[in-house]
Amino acid sequence: MGIDSVLEEFKLDALLITDPYNMRYISGFRGGEGTLYISRNNKVLITDSRYTEAAGKESDFTVIESNRNHKTTDILLKLLQEENGVILGYEDEAMLCKTFRTYQKELPVVKEWVPVGGAVTKLRQIKTEEEIGYLRQAEAIGDIAFSKILDIIRPGMTELEIQAELEYQLMKAGASGTSFDTIVASGIHSSMPHAIPTDKKVEMGDFITMDFGCRYMGYCSDMTRTIVLGKANDKQKRIYQLVLKANCITESFLHAGMICREVDKIARDIITNAGYGRYFGHGLGHSVGLEIHESPACNTSDTTVLQPNMIMTIEPGVYLPGFGGVRIEDMVVITRGGYENLSHSTKELIEL
Amino acid sequence: MGIDSVLEEFKLDALLITDPYNMRYISGFRGGEGTLYISRNNKVLITDSRYTEAAGKESDFTVIESNRNHKTTDILLKLLQEENGVILGYEDEAMLCKTFRTYQKELPVVKEWVPVGGAVTKLRQIKTEEEIGYLRQAEAIGDIAFSKILDIIRPGMTELEIQAELEYQLMKAGASGTSFDTIVASGIHSSMPHAIPTDKKVEMGDFITMDFGCRYMGYCSDMTRTIVLGKANDKQKRIYQLVLKANCITESFLHAGMICREVDKIARDIITNAGYGRYFGHGLGHSVGLEIHESPACNTSDTTVLQPNMIMTIEPGVYLPGFGGVRIEDMVVITRGGYENLSHSTKELIEL
Repeated sequence: MGIDSVLEEFKLDALLITDPYNMRYISGFRGGEGTLYISRNNKVLITDSRYTEAAGKESDFTVIESNRNHKTTDILLKLLQEENGVILGYEDEAMLCKTFRTYQKELPVVKEWVPVGGAVTKLRQIKTEEEIGYLRQAEAIGDIAFSKILDIIRPGMTELEIQAELEYQLMKAGASGTSFDTIVASGIHSSMPHAIPTDKKVEMGDFITMDFGCRYMGYCSDMTRTIVLGKANDKQKRIYQLVLKANCITESFLHAGMICREVDKIARDIITNAGYGRYFGHGLGHSVGLEIHESPACNTSDTTVLQPNMIMTIEPGVYLPGFGGVRIEDMVVITRGGYENLSHSTKELIEL
Repeated sequence: MGIDSVLEEFKLDALLITDPYNMRYISGFRGGEGTLYISRNNKVLITDSRYTEAAGKESDFTVIESNRNHKTTDILLKLLQEENGVILGYEDEAMLCKTFRTYQKELPVVKEWVPVGGAVTKLRQIKTEEEIGYLRQAEAIGDIAFSKILDIIRPGMTELEIQAELEYQLMKAGASGTSFDTIVASGIHSSMPHAIPTDKKVEMGDFITMDFGCRYMGYCSDMTRTIVLGKANDKQKRIYQLVLKANCITESFLHAGMICREVDKIARDIITNAGYGRYFGHGLGHSVGLEIHESPACNTSDTTVLQPNMIMTIEPGVYLPGFGGVRIEDMVVITRGGYENLSHSTKELIEL
């Protein structure tokens, strides 16, 4: 299932790829700023002088440099004319309205513009062994950083300081960067699933939720652990055990062939039956790869069937405004008969 | 010049804002995922449960939660019907083709969809004193991190290790994150303006170009310095002095009232007259704010007139494939009679 299948499926003369991650996946070019032109006989990467040298090394596509006198649309026009290309596919899930209108205007040879939706992105759903190797390593770096941060966290540190130390540990362990804005949310902040770290100091008795990820060879890791600084009280323990139960039981059912929304339902039912359904507002998980959020997703509506070598996060949570929240997130590979958990950090409640 | 001016200019009943930075600028909401609906009488922020608690604290907009049974378009439809809104503006420079088509289909009450281009983004061009304060602090954090990294770099360290240490120093000095992927390019890698750090070790005689930035209160810094590890050779000195000259002379001319492309021309002429014009392929600089790349830009085509309290990077470079490259970048505030350089790190050639 290569890119040619997309040309065939949509009966295209040529296809433009503008999504930076799809560009990398299909061509090897890592710069992100450019356009791929793909026809039966031509594989061209158009980018500017900031990237052309690197592009030539990273990609086996023909690299053409765009500049002020030789715009991307000038280059595309010539390619389309040479090939008599009149049916052109484009990524409507990645192209801005404004860009599309410019292209339409400047490429009058195109008779039909065909939106291909997520067809190229979909090629990335099932990972190769090489990709899984990178994802496994990315998540292993996360495990190392998490074990280090447990030795570093002290009462009185701010959320931002913990973020800085955690990200430093990721880099020291071999990451090339973070895969999203690190979340460190303590005390009542932890009731906000996507809290932004602040200068709030962590105090004894606080929940501390850390949701973090890194990049390794371009691939993302994703992991969340919630700990308690000092002794957990009964309510904290109750919430924690509920989320842990939702996490573990859901994972125990995982295997290829399940429908995404059924996976979500397992965790959601456990939390709902315990009376906390309204405090679990987000989906159970999402796929991960070159991007931190990829399709499919385990939520209440996705009907994708899980297949071997898909990656999925399993991240149930319960968030009580004014009290705090717990999320426990693993990143797993779906296998024929089950799953492999790439996250090896303990999920037992840590009282630091 | 508030957001109401956009409603008036385009004669809109209401306006949707979907660009995450514009969303933050206009509403205060920092989560990035959501939609603003703005009419004469209504200011509504639609987002999901991951963000609603934070949104309520950060923004004075009315927050409405979207979820599976109450989609963003359902909420918008109700708002538009209540207000009899039929002329709706949208950000075509921020909205994906696919999203636009969904909106068109699900909001049949809208009689006219009006693309507002960069009208909202343009409101951000001239910074307030508060914003300049944040940008000044962000760039000051960059200066601190740069001074620290000079004490850390040793022959044998990899580009990735230098990146890790540099980013850690940014965070230690008060940043909340990086503003773009840090560039550390050594030796012949430095001829790639946007090189990605590798496990190449830095060696005596290498140029090391570091292009880095951080975020402070949401605002970005941006700065580049090129140093030599050990003694610079004559060719390195010649290239360095040329780029430094282009940087300093261009800055000395800066003032409100200049046209962006004229600023670019000063630097470009200096480099071209020295015979290196073809090795300076990118624009001279860009504005910075909540985003790392904002408009206007000093390049060969932008005809915007510089105004007081605009921010601009001045970053000439010369890149010789197979040899190496130099870029020297400051971030400045345009003033009525000149400019204020926010970057205070020395620009004299550092031989480490």
